[in-house]
Amino acid sequence: MTEPLKIGLIGTGRIGQVHAASVAALPETTLTWVCDPFVEQATATAARYGVTNVTADAAEVLAAPDVDAIIMASPTPTHVDLLSTAIDAGVPALCEKPIDLDIARVDALRGKAAGSTTPIALGFNRRFDPDFAEVRRRVAAGEIGRLEQLSITSRDPEPPPIGYVAVSGGIFRDMTIHDFDMARFFVPDIVEVTARGAHQFDAGIRDAGDYDAAVVTLRGAGGELITITNSRHSVYGYDQRLEAFGAQGLLQVSNVSPTTVRAFGPNGVEGRAGYHTFFLERYAEAYRAELAAFVRTIRDATHESPGFEDGRAALVLADAAVRSAAEGITVPVDLHA
Amino acid sequence: MTEPLKIGLIGTGRIGQVHAASVAALPETTLTWVCDPFVEQATATAARYGVTNVTADAAEVLAAPDVDAIIMASPTPTHVDLLSTAIDAGVPALCEKPIDLDIARVDALRGKAAGSTTPIALGFNRRFDPDFAEVRRRVAAGEIGRLEQLSITSRDPEPPPIGYVAVSGGIFRDMTIHDFDMARFFVPDIVEVTARGAHQFDAGIRDAGDYDAAVVTLRGAGGELITITNSRHSVYGYDQRLEAFGAQGLLQVSNVSPTTVRAFGPNGVEGRAGYHTFFLERYAEAYRAELAAFVRTIRDATHESPGFEDGRAALVLADAAVRSAAEGITVPVDLHA
Amino acid sequence: MTEPLKIGLIGTGRIGQVHAASVAALPETTLTWVCDPFVEQATATAARYGVTNVTADAAEVLAAPDVDAIIMASPTPTHVDLLSTAIDAGVPALCEKPIDLDIARVDALRGKAAGSTTPIALGFNRRFDPDFAEVRRRVAAGEIGRLEQLSITSRDPEPPPIGYVAVSGGIFRDMTIHDFDMARFFVPDIVEVTARGAHQFDAGIRDAGDYDAAVVTLRGAGGELITITNSRHSVYGYDQRLEAFGAQGLLQVSNVSPTTVRAFGPNGVEGRAGYHTFFLERYAEAYRAELAAFVRTIRDATHESPGFEDGRAALVLADAAVRSAAEGITVPVDLHA
Amino acid sequence: MTEPLKIGLIGTGRIGQVHAASVAALPETTLTWVCDPFVEQATATAARYGVTNVTADAAEVLAAPDVDAIIMASPTPTHVDLLSTAIDAGVPALCEKPIDLDIARVDALRGKAAGSTTPIALGFNRRFDPDFAEVRRRVAAGEIGRLEQLSITSRDPEPPPIGYVAVSGGIFRDMTIHDFDMARFFVPDIVEVTARGAHQFDAGIRDAGDYDAAVVTLRGAGGELITITNSRHSVYGYDQRLEAFGAQGLLQVSNVSPTTVRAFGPNGVEGRAGYHTFFLERYAEAYRAELAAFVRTIRDATHESPGFEDGRAALVLADAAVRSAAEGITVPVDLHA
Repeated sequence: MTEPLKIGLIGTGRIGQVHAASVAALPETTLTWVCDPFVEQATATAARYGVTNVTADAAEVLAAPDVDAIIMASPTPTHVDLLSTAIDAGVPALCEKPIDLDIARVDALRGKAAGSTTPIALGFNRRFDPDFAEVRRRVAAGEIGRLEQLSITSRDPEPPPIGYVAVSGGIFRDMTIHDFDMARFFVPDIVEVTARGAHQFDAGIRDAGDYDAAVVTLRGAGGELITITNSRHSVYGYDQRLEAFGAQGLLQVSNVSPTTVRAFGPNGVEGRAGYHTFFLERYAEAYRAELAAFVRTIRDATHESPGFEDGRAALVLADAAVRSAAEGITVPVDLHA
Repeated sequence: MTEPLKIGLIGTGRIGQVHAASVAALPETTLTWVCDPFVEQATATAARYGVTNVTADAAEVLAAPDVDAIIMASPTPTHVDLLSTAIDAGVPALCEKPIDLDIARVDALRGKAAGSTTPIALGFNRRFDPDFAEVRRRVAAGEIGRLEQLSITSRDPEPPPIGYVAVSGGIFRDMTIHDFDMARFFVPDIVEVTARGAHQFDAGIRDAGDYDAAVVTLRGAGGELITITNSRHSVYGYDQRLEAFGAQGLLQVSNVSPTTVRAFGPNGVEGRAGYHTFFLERYAEAYRAELAAFVRTIRDATHESPGFEDGRAALVLADAAVRSAAEGITVPVDLHA
Repeated sequence: MTEPLKIGLIGTGRIGQVHAASVAALPETTLTWVCDPFVEQATATAARYGVTNVTADAAEVLAAPDVDAIIMASPTPTHVDLLSTAIDAGVPALCEKPIDLDIARVDALRGKAAGSTTPIALGFNRRFDPDFAEVRRRVAAGEIGRLEQLSITSRDPEPPPIGYVAVSGGIFRDMTIHDFDMARFFVPDIVEVTARGAHQFDAGIRDAGDYDAAVVTLRGAGGELITITNSRHSVYGYDQRLEAFGAQGLLQVSNVSPTTVRAFGPNGVEGRAGYHTFFLERYAEAYRAELAAFVRTIRDATHESPGFEDGRAALVLADAAVRSAAEGITVPVDLHA
Repeated sequence: MTEPLKIGLIGTGRIGQVHAASVAALPETTLTWVCDPFVEQATATAARYGVTNVTADAAEVLAAPDVDAIIMASPTPTHVDLLSTAIDAGVPALCEKPIDLDIARVDALRGKAAGSTTPIALGFNRRFDPDFAEVRRRVAAGEIGRLEQLSITSRDPEPPPIGYVAVSGGIFRDMTIHDFDMARFFVPDIVEVTARGAHQFDAGIRDAGDYDAAVVTLRGAGGELITITNSRHSVYGYDQRLEAFGAQGLLQVSNVSPTTVRAFGPNGVEGRAGYHTFFLERYAEAYRAELAAFVRTIRDATHESPGFEDGRAALVLADAAVRSAAEGITVPVDLHA
């Protein structure tokens, strides 16, 4: 059996905890370093998983001899510099999305990333969800013929705290960015973005200059039409669905219920108790599979993980959506430029 | 175009009204006589459909020159004599089930029915329900290979009035009889009956010496196992389902909802408003198709309609179930004897 | 009982046949006149329903004493003149959509229609589909709170003949027009149209200057976002779905299967044989309910039927979609202007 | 944090491997001993989980100081003696079902088990399946009112090897035993058993004197009617469903699919790719939850685990089913005797 991959974790917030748990659960990985400027939190996380190396300094992790790869769950503004250092150190990195909210900063790193062989993986975990991955595989296998239309529905149970909204980069860069990547999972080459935003229920979001709901239409280089429907709230839980329509059929992903139980009573029939209401439950398996793919990408160069260019592309599409929604025009994009 | 078949209707109660409406809706039939000892009710029905011939005497209908066939929706005790007269007159009859509650009376007519070429159809309308008929057709076409198991669920929304229960012949002869015929629709030759009845919720039914719930297991001559699950109440509406299981798969009939609408809310997801709660709504199309098959049976000798022997077989199975439930034994039957 | 409404039918093509059958099936209506320049076809239709009055001249129908209302199933270019004559004659009309392909011609009649009390109903039959109508009723009853998003999926089994495409007015005026009206069934006041068309599979349609697929985003006056997804083909049958999303939940309309039967086998589970592939089967009940509503609109002034302004609004939205798709801009509209 | 419970595993066959993996995955447990007469297999299992204590002698495990509890996955004939020794040693045991195929041997141990406070848990893993457990919890909470009928469908993908059939004790003791326990999970006090077996597709099973399909009807002390439908094959995968019907409604468990993906194509719509075909996949979560409940039963005396009397009751019902099927009679049982 191969030695497990030694992982250094940068950032121990909510998403950092998810990754720590995945590393512990996966036989192919072992956690060796935990890093957070909030050292107390880093120490607690390290203790939970029996890790002895704790630091507030990410550079120390990257320089450590017992680190084969890092997982970057630190705040977005730290990503670009950290990625740059990781590339210099030749340490593979799994970086939470987005790379940065500012395309200029992303583009400044683009050349170095392209010129390096150090694997950089972007944390678009939904690509690894069993449902979405199955549809992607079956579409690729030709089951529905040429892909013509893709419909993505993505609604969050509740809006984020208003303080977060203010620094989030707006709904397109913060929430829709997942859907832009999902669109590119099926149609990598997007050539056109049309977006409409709305103020439907949250005055705080409106006052912060953001939308609480949005609809985006993308066009692929092959003429594919992709629609994304977003809302920042959903009283029935996390609403994450997708339909791939092609010349020979349709494949559909429904929401995930904890059980199959359906109820029949005087007030209704065939109802289920509810969907997952938290993205960590909904995507628990996806996070594990994401890490496993990162290991394979490093060891076997399988290129399964979405990379730097995928992270950049999602941001380019988000920026185009911002402009389209503001100006009422369709915005052409060239992801290869 | 062929001349419509001239129909005489005997009996204008609830089920008689259903047939009158079906006759009016079907281009191949026309209503020419209406008969009921309650002449006022017969007259009202006749008026509704523009029929001029009204009588309290069924014999007058059978003797009338403008009657090609009769529909018998009169009370059960009248069936045997009326069928006998119809056979003598050579007038095809669609007779509501059961033929009679007393197998001796049925057997007394059996020879005459067998010796006659006059079509006698029994009102087992469920055979003509589009869902059940589709499964039957696909099983016959071999889609699931050899049929091994059949599961029939049949629950009524509410128990009948207690006065009716007393004269109904009991749950097996009154309610399960439909399921016995459905079993024979798939497996005509039943060789064994095992039944258990229960007193679950209705003291009146118990006091009348009847069960309010029952489970029956039948065995077919080919080793098929058939289960029937009955209840006299169902708070979520008419529960009428079936599963045919075979060596190559399973075909399943679900309950019928008025629309496809599903609701998603804070208290549950994917629920539908409810099923039909009345058998005339649930089986509206079946009654129309039953009449159409009766016409084809008369005109083209297609033998689509269940006949006298089917009516008798259901009663034989019901009688065996009564005995099995009472004595705690499996009862062998020979439907050919 | 009230005397049935005497109906004159103008046009005996495919859709005219549907209406003739609905008139025959509805007790509240009776067919008294049949009109078509193809007199032979008119005569055949009349014979089928026992009607003695046949003519090639619509004016004769409008002048006849035994005509209480007309159904206009004649070609689109005849609609404006015929409506004008019907209004002059005070004869209520149920007019197949669209009123006309040219908004100028529609606007020329607008004043007269608005000034008249003669009921003009537009044939937007989908409003009367039991599924869509149920969702509309439940949304109106407040079940999902404030309506925020509406998603309409509408795909035809196969593209129309290319000769028809050339004179159809294009996908937005010919096909999406139903969806524009469905959008307005829920959100009458639309203020903005954004559309993208595509050439995905049919070279003939592209050469005729039309799209074979389209996505439209509408905005309602209350900030509602509505998406329409269209394709001119669908290998799995008529795809007609809708989701209404609100602050308190979601209501969903699925496609309609002829039966509830599901199959389980070695190659897959829970599958149904297929959907309706023909709009007349899918919307059979809607056509009957449309006629019944027309009768009530005439007799009881219930205003259930969509009217002239609804017909005009759908065309205004279609025109805006044409422009939006061509120019890559969002087009503001004012349906009250 | 509490010290993990130290587990000794007896038996390293297929089911032993499942338990070893569960122990490794559960933070509350740690594997300290592995025992199997096939020492090589025991050693390999121990190596996989980093365990140093390996033995061929179960007595050594029970005597070891670093064993807090044992899991018995050894062959059925070893269970009674091992349980007896475990009780004497005061070591809690999780024993795979059945306790024994011979009720006399079970009864011989019954008094000792009843007189001891050492927790004995029976491996009826299905009680811990999230779907079944949810229905049980909701029934207990009164959601469907008084429970009246329970329908259990249980079909295996394929029959076991014929060599196994010969020593299995027959379908009722080997396969239906799970369903008997599931019945008792809802209705502990069963008073009557009626069973019918059949020879439907497997000549080898018939020649071995066993059935390949069966239907069982149970009656509960409260008048509940329970039906169990079994088959030893199912071409569409593991078929494990349940319906609980009560005065106020119905709760239904469907089969579990790996994903939610549904396909729509020219040959059918709404189909899923397939169900799990292996019980370890279908019940993976149930095995983990079973172990967690065993820990709580030991530590907190929660009595969540089914115990010795549950193991005995299932066998009593199986024996009654054998007799009922053979003699064609309903067999009364008294589980308290």
